[in-house]
Amino acid sequence: MFISLEGIDGSGKSTQSRLLAEALRGRGHDVVLTREPGGSAGAEAIRRLLVEGDPDRWSPETELLLFNAARRDHLERLIRPALARGAWVVSDRFADSTRVYQGATRGDLRDLVDRLHALVIGQEPDLTIVIDMDPEVALTRGLARASGEDRFEEFGLPFQQKLRAGFLALAGDFPDRIRVIDGMADADTVAARIGALL
Amino acid sequence: MFISLEGIDGSGKSTQSRLLAEALRGRGHDVVLTREPGGSAGAEAIRRLLVEGDPDRWSPETELLLFNAARRDHLERLIRPALARGAWVVSDRFADSTRVYQGATRGDLRDLVDRLHALVIGQEPDLTIVIDMDPEVALTRGLARASGEDRFEEFGLPFQQKLRAGFLALAGDFPDRIRVIDGMADADTVAARIGALL
Repeated sequence: MFISLEGIDGSGKSTQSRLLAEALRGRGHDVVLTREPGGSAGAEAIRRLLVEGDPDRWSPETELLLFNAARRDHLERLIRPALARGAWVVSDRFADSTRVYQGATRGDLRDLVDRLHALVIGQEPDLTIVIDMDPEVALTRGLARASGEDRFEEFGLPFQQKLRAGFLALAGDFPDRIRVIDGMADADTVAARIGALL
Repeated sequence: MFISLEGIDGSGKSTQSRLLAEALRGRGHDVVLTREPGGSAGAEAIRRLLVEGDPDRWSPETELLLFNAARRDHLERLIRPALARGAWVVSDRFADSTRVYQGATRGDLRDLVDRLHALVIGQEPDLTIVIDMDPEVALTRGLARASGEDRFEEFGLPFQQKLRAGFLALAGDFPDRIRVIDGMADADTVAARIGALL
């Protein structure tokens, strides 16, 4: 079973991915907890190019190619081998982030996003959980992390509002795969909402 | 005018690119001398991921995505602006290297190479010069450089022989754009052969 968690910056994806992995391990599953961009040695090297530097460091098209390169490496080196041995994979972000970040907010690239995905990725999670949250609250959380990985967060509140709308629209496009969870609660409450889906 | 130089590792592309740029400047042209992978700040960062490390660091598909990301950046940030102001661009490698390295030698990826090129690059040089050379001679030269950028050269002689055949076949596919030059001579002689084409 391959599960991805999605949502805007600061929505609690990383925390919830970790809590979900722990809960699944508690049920006796072999669980691989991972994240995008990154998750494999090569993809983490590409991640550094993507998340550091000025917001205009890359054009939307170049950025999209880098995300696909990182995802292809992640899929080949980590996700597919894990699924093949029967493990559960929990990923903090996957291809829906690209559909929303590059497809909905940075130029009108959704067609290119879909073509590249079909050409070089072609894999979807079995279940995707979108953690929905007020962008003003989420943005405050994200910047407070001061991780040095704030290239996307620097696009500001209107960008995060577009992202939220993009994730909700995507949930409508893939109703069988994507579930939306209300993220405006403490971490344990949100974790319980996610656990109830599985 | 956009000119690319192609050929196997150690065939003298870098030297000949420099000599060609000098010759064109001598004729009064504004010339931008560049190279791939690289040529712009972002593409040079991607280059480091591509040319360093083990030969199996990336799968052919991931590698192909990284080359296209670097090329897109190079095209947007350096080549197109230079052509737009009327400069001549001389590039040590361009898309034909990808057609041959990833399309002809590493798995049978030529169809994917062509689809990605059409999707995200879509630009060809006005003239491409293939410097043809005996791979045994070229390989000795390439390794002697000890640049630390020998990830491809480490694939060895049979790989270089496939590359040579790939470049010659490509010249047959694009007879109007690609010219093959005999590179088995001293640098000034080869430079004169190239200069005679322009």
